[in-house]
Amino acid sequence: MLSISILGTGNLAKHLFDAFLKAKGINVVQVVGRNKEALAQFSEHCTISQDFTTIADTDVYLMAVKDDAIAEVSKYLSHKKGVVAHTSGAIGLEAIQAVNKGVFYPLQTFTKGKPVSFQYIPICIEAQSKQSLEILITLGHSISENVHHIDSEQRKKLHLAAVFVNNFTNYLYDVGESLCLDEGLSFDLLKPLILETAEKVQRLSPKEAQTGPARRNDSESMEAHLELLNNEEHRTLYKLLSQAIKKRHEEEL
Amino acid sequence: MLSISILGTGNLAKHLFDAFLKAKGINVVQVVGRNKEALAQFSEHCTISQDFTTIADTDVYLMAVKDDAIAEVSKYLSHKKGVVAHTSGAIGLEAIQAVNKGVFYPLQTFTKGKPVSFQYIPICIEAQSKQSLEILITLGHSISENVHHIDSEQRKKLHLAAVFVNNFTNYLYDVGESLCLDEGLSFDLLKPLILETAEKVQRLSPKEAQTGPARRNDSESMEAHLELLNNEEHRTLYKLLSQAIKKRHEEEL
Repeated sequence: MLSISILGTGNLAKHLFDAFLKAKGINVVQVVGRNKEALAQFSEHCTISQDFTTIADTDVYLMAVKDDAIAEVSKYLSHKKGVVAHTSGAIGLEAIQAVNKGVFYPLQTFTKGKPVSFQYIPICIEAQSKQSLEILITLGHSISENVHHIDSEQRKKLHLAAVFVNNFTNYLYDVGESLCLDEGLSFDLLKPLILETAEKVQRLSPKEAQTGPARRNDSESMEAHLELLNNEEHRTLYKLLSQAIKKRHEEEL
Repeated sequence: MLSISILGTGNLAKHLFDAFLKAKGINVVQVVGRNKEALAQFSEHCTISQDFTTIADTDVYLMAVKDDAIAEVSKYLSHKKGVVAHTSGAIGLEAIQAVNKGVFYPLQTFTKGKPVSFQYIPICIEAQSKQSLEILITLGHSISENVHHIDSEQRKKLHLAAVFVNNFTNYLYDVGESLCLDEGLSFDLLKPLILETAEKVQRLSPKEAQTGPARRNDSESMEAHLELLNNEEHRTLYKLLSQAIKKRHEEEL
């Protein structure tokens, strides 16, 4: 049995808490956070505290806090024997000011109020000592089948890749919605296409899955599209992305 | 009972054929196309022909051919009484050279060999006459619950929106894969995130769903990301998309 504390009360803290409550071999002992209101939702199943100076002793301390709070929160855990792990994609191991440092980074986007199954979510693990690594891997396996040992440099690149496939992709959905609304059309019309586009690369590589005017180097269609775009930002994006797709596939044309 | 012919033997022709074969009240009479080998796959369930001058008389003629072949193929149908419809997002009604013009545009990406359920796929219908419109709407409803009357201008914008949420999004997946491979990481790590990103906007608007450094105007994280990007094209994309997200959300920061 592994005992854990969760530091933080936000979106990720809540999703991790829900997952670990159901996990075999894991005992969630305490949730610690400044926000009294947010803390209340955890009080039924473990102890809660607003005081970072009285954190219970557990095997693992999971810091589910903002990137710039990691160093500060870890100071309260500097004397602890358990593994002190942050959950961030962008921050190195060295930011943690504790004896047994680690990282427990679930690579997923979490939505408040939308339950998520951790079973297939990649959990990216890193730790300074072999023993801490093993503990975090055990913890990862308690909620996911998809646990990976990934170092800080790799994790930063992965987080950057996540910005492209999540943040930037979502912005393209936003542009798609604007174009629909301009014509009095519902964004609902694009939803099945959005899902299928994501499903397609579960089997095919994105390069194989690429279609469209830029892929075919169909200048006439691209010109016609540019004529339809009156937002300067959308035009620049259209040109840049089309150019990149053309370049990526030019050896095949 | 509606009788239909399909002109063309490609990916879309095959998916439409499979859907109409199972649809109630639809009789697929004939598939016509130049490619003998591709035609053969339709021969079990209807007549096939390579000769466009001997197309059977049916209620609807669906042209599932490349955009630049629509005008030419429609000439062979200029004397027909049935509705002659193309299936393209980008081409206007007027390209068709026949008496009863129409459009039957399924807004989806189709992958060879991957069966697709048409039930939720938006079918965008347009026609010159009210009678043709009704026939195409009936045809649409035989395979989908999601049939819409959409004019040529709207459809062209919709097709452009589809380029953003499908072609361009897929290219961002491609960038994500490159970043993974550079670090010796598998693209599989990003797949659950890609799916969840698409699923998120089925309930939330893309604007609500937006997260990330640009959304928070977190300059430090964005600078750190740019340092990690050594491909000039990826850097330009990163800057442009981050700038666009910042601008879109600046009133909320």
